[in-house]
Amino acid sequence: MGEFELIRQYFMPLARLHGSSSVIVGPGDDCAVQRVPPGSDLVFSIDTLVEGVHFPVGYRPDYLGWRTLAVAASDLAAMGAEPSCFTLALTLPEADELWLRDFSLGLGNAAESFGLTLAGGDTTRGPLTLSVQVHGVVEQGGAIRRSGARAGDLVVVSGSLGDAGAALDYLPAQEDLDADDSAAADKQFVLERYHHPQPRLDLGKALRQFATAAIDVSDGLLADLNHILEASNVGASIELARIPVSPALVRLKGSAATDYALHSGDDYELCATISEASWVGAPAWLKQQLTVVGEIEPVSGLRLDGSAVVSGSEATGFDHFRRKA
Amino acid sequence: MGEFELIRQYFMPLARLHGSSSVIVGPGDDCAVQRVPPGSDLVFSIDTLVEGVHFPVGYRPDYLGWRTLAVAASDLAAMGAEPSCFTLALTLPEADELWLRDFSLGLGNAAESFGLTLAGGDTTRGPLTLSVQVHGVVEQGGAIRRSGARAGDLVVVSGSLGDAGAALDYLPAQEDLDADDSAAADKQFVLERYHHPQPRLDLGKALRQFATAAIDVSDGLLADLNHILEASNVGASIELARIPVSPALVRLKGSAATDYALHSGDDYELCATISEASWVGAPAWLKQQLTVVGEIEPVSGLRLDGSAVVSGSEATGFDHFRRKA
Repeated sequence: MGEFELIRQYFMPLARLHGSSSVIVGPGDDCAVQRVPPGSDLVFSIDTLVEGVHFPVGYRPDYLGWRTLAVAASDLAAMGAEPSCFTLALTLPEADELWLRDFSLGLGNAAESFGLTLAGGDTTRGPLTLSVQVHGVVEQGGAIRRSGARAGDLVVVSGSLGDAGAALDYLPAQEDLDADDSAAADKQFVLERYHHPQPRLDLGKALRQFATAAIDVSDGLLADLNHILEASNVGASIELARIPVSPALVRLKGSAATDYALHSGDDYELCATISEASWVGAPAWLKQQLTVVGEIEPVSGLRLDGSAVVSGSEATGFDHFRRKA
Repeated sequence: MGEFELIRQYFMPLARLHGSSSVIVGPGDDCAVQRVPPGSDLVFSIDTLVEGVHFPVGYRPDYLGWRTLAVAASDLAAMGAEPSCFTLALTLPEADELWLRDFSLGLGNAAESFGLTLAGGDTTRGPLTLSVQVHGVVEQGGAIRRSGARAGDLVVVSGSLGDAGAALDYLPAQEDLDADDSAAADKQFVLERYHHPQPRLDLGKALRQFATAAIDVSDGLLADLNHILEASNVGASIELARIPVSPALVRLKGSAATDYALHSGDDYELCATISEASWVGAPAWLKQQLTVVGEIEPVSGLRLDGSAVVSGSEATGFDHFRRKA
């Protein structure tokens, strides 16, 4: 079966997920065409995952399909955008039909879950590499930027942090977790957080009314909060005891749990800044999804329990050219 | 120098090329934001180039920068779209500063030439792979599709075909063309066609008023015309003697020149269909850029000088999973 047939068989169903989609020309022409609703801006982001760098060699293709789209959709969440469609540039060493079937299954489940229609793509031969561009829409001027944080704003994060980072310690053994291991359920929990990140799309949309800045935590809280601080030209103080960590992570990693929360980002939670007044006025259902971990301050730099962290993304960031998978 | 600094230094200037751009948030946030003009559709396409598959190992980075964006922009030309911006997903084995400098130079020259602003991107470590998504705009419903060809339409192509395909024969020796070789100038000509394809953006926009269907010739005239025929549910007859080939290609390849024109697509010319009435009424400057090579017919299939070509992309197409670089 040739490239064209494989693509048709496994990916075309993903182009027909949403009848109400703004995609008016989907895969199969030189370009796709999207009609952005009047009064809306187009919001888009491209992300690449490379085998052996961003996911383990031999990673399950259905997990990979989910994860690839989740990672990209998380950027839409951070801007508060409504998801619309995506393109996929898939580079594969060989056209393995079983792999494509499982990958497209995971990708399709994610697309359905996030409200994203496949608009187009390119399939090529080469080392396993996936680039996904996601498109969303937001009312004109309504996208949440990184640059809006102001001194006095509260720093909030969604969910719990560090779980997926801890999962990296258990990934090679993912298939043979010992059922007698009393930590098996906890390991399963953090592994699931790694395999199936849930981009905070609804939360991001809700934050549009309240947040002054937002970012998705893809590289770790320290690195990503630093991006907000630099873009907004402010600083922040964080209380370590307030950083939300799951009971499973604490049982697995003890006092190191907070380190995972600070330095790993594979959970794809959101970090946002909100003025005190907005926070007070925010509805309970929104507050329940967020934890206040600190405050924005006029003096630049990031302080943890009062101690300054070396500033700048070099010291704290995830750097793809340095990291080992 | 870390990833972030390299990206800033070499790519941020490409984000500031066009003051009048519709990009209202460029690189440096979770997503880019584009404001599509009222009454317009967004037109977009993603393309991947893999080292050793789509370009030779060790290919000059400045040529690669140009070629990567040209290949993608050619899809905008085929839809008749006005270029607006692009994203770049760049996967590199190492953060080689000289390579990045030269690559960004070629990419920047292409961006300037085509009217495309860098809106965002992702840089990762891995085997050299480039995915570019280009964005353009077109008046609502005005994009030229592959599916509009009707029996009786003329089949036209732009420029000359086959030059860049022939260049592949001379690529390994590109640096040491013998000046005494009487064919050196011809080889240089076809090599330049390969290294610096010129997407037919102005021609594509002009064709919006005249063409019933269009495609860019990326995989060879036979394969790409077949895409039009299949999408439009028609057939075509082509006269081989009318296929435009350059004098250089004829001198280099003799009677095989037409084979290059039929089977190689690296020139990135356009193939379009135009009703006889539109063709008669078309202005001279438009006709001068096009050559009539055949006619659309109601009976499916593609006929060359009356002999049927095995139909379907399997027989005639460029298949990335089969082709050797």
